[in-house]
Amino acid sequence: MRVAVMASGRGSNFDALHRSSLDPVNPAEIVVVVSDQPGAPVLEKARRFTVPVEVIDPGTRRGAWSQAGVGAALDALRRHRVEAICLAGFMRVLPSEIVGAFPNAILNIHPSLLPAFPGLRAQRQALRAGVKVTGCTVHLVDEGVDTGPILVQRTVPVEPGDTEDTLANRILEQEHRAYPEALRALAEGRVTVEGTSVTLAPTLT
Amino acid sequence: MRVAVMASGRGSNFDALHRSSLDPVNPAEIVVVVSDQPGAPVLEKARRFTVPVEVIDPGTRRGAWSQAGVGAALDALRRHRVEAICLAGFMRVLPSEIVGAFPNAILNIHPSLLPAFPGLRAQRQALRAGVKVTGCTVHLVDEGVDTGPILVQRTVPVEPGDTEDTLANRILEQEHRAYPEALRALAEGRVTVEGTSVTLAPTLT
Repeated sequence: MRVAVMASGRGSNFDALHRSSLDPVNPAEIVVVVSDQPGAPVLEKARRFTVPVEVIDPGTRRGAWSQAGVGAALDALRRHRVEAICLAGFMRVLPSEIVGAFPNAILNIHPSLLPAFPGLRAQRQALRAGVKVTGCTVHLVDEGVDTGPILVQRTVPVEPGDTEDTLANRILEQEHRAYPEALRALAEGRVTVEGTSVTLAPTLT
Repeated sequence: MRVAVMASGRGSNFDALHRSSLDPVNPAEIVVVVSDQPGAPVLEKARRFTVPVEVIDPGTRRGAWSQAGVGAALDALRRHRVEAICLAGFMRVLPSEIVGAFPNAILNIHPSLLPAFPGLRAQRQALRAGVKVTGCTVHLVDEGVDTGPILVQRTVPVEPGDTEDTLANRILEQEHRAYPEALRALAEGRVTVEGTSVTLAPTLT
């Protein structure tokens, strides 16, 4: 399965997904990294692994995409014959044209146990709520923000003295496990979606 | 620490709390079970363990308490020289007079990872949301419903094919660990509350 990773930042989840895709039994292959940030460190990382990169210009500074921006993104995805997309710190909501073009084939990862703490700074939200457990969620992308059927969740404890950074790093370790696990299940055709409920069939061994 | 368990149902959490209180190093002692349901199975269970029981009549069928009902409950709690309260399936929101009389000394347990899925049928809410992880939460009671600073959370996986019952039973096993752990921490003076954040100091060994 030909996969695009869309990212705006350092790309630590790209790294985890790429590493996992190198396993010859994993049918997921990262064929392109797409970024809206020409200077994103993830692009440098992709080049080092000889993964093609595409920089797109959504055409507006915030929120809504321009028609040209949507067209450029779809064009890049088509040129690389992309079949599935992993959002990995991509700091824009995908336009409905892209979501509609990849039904049940766009994954996102979020640093909380959704539906708790959607949106920005989920780790800070968790600290402020005083929860003792949080984690990360890999879900299929629909037209909402951090909604969509859930494939994988992994938990971490909140420890006394945690800051947003220490908690984010602890969650990130689990993200780097959860995201490859979810993508591989998708690539192996083990994901069944019924409404809000997702079943992951076990790996054949 | 003299503890009242308030319950309306079968009292499986009373059972777990009582069992844990029998440990001679645990300073929590269940001195009374208070129920609003004269036929609640928890009362039979309490009598079998020779724990005193009090049946109170909140005085209205739903929601708000009568003044006489509040007075009867406070009177029962005072007669047994209660210092802390554990709500264990008590199907009424406590009136502010009782909450105010036991500051930071009333615990509740809820079958979800709060703030997710507050209110009734939390397990069904979790199944409908399609989460892969849920759990239970022990928190201090304030005037809200299933709000208040969190002491302990424990997680359980949601398994394929789970029903509300199978999930509830899996969560209940963790409730029976989480609730005694939280009560003992409270009784040992290991609980520090700052705003929404609760710190449990480690047990001295």
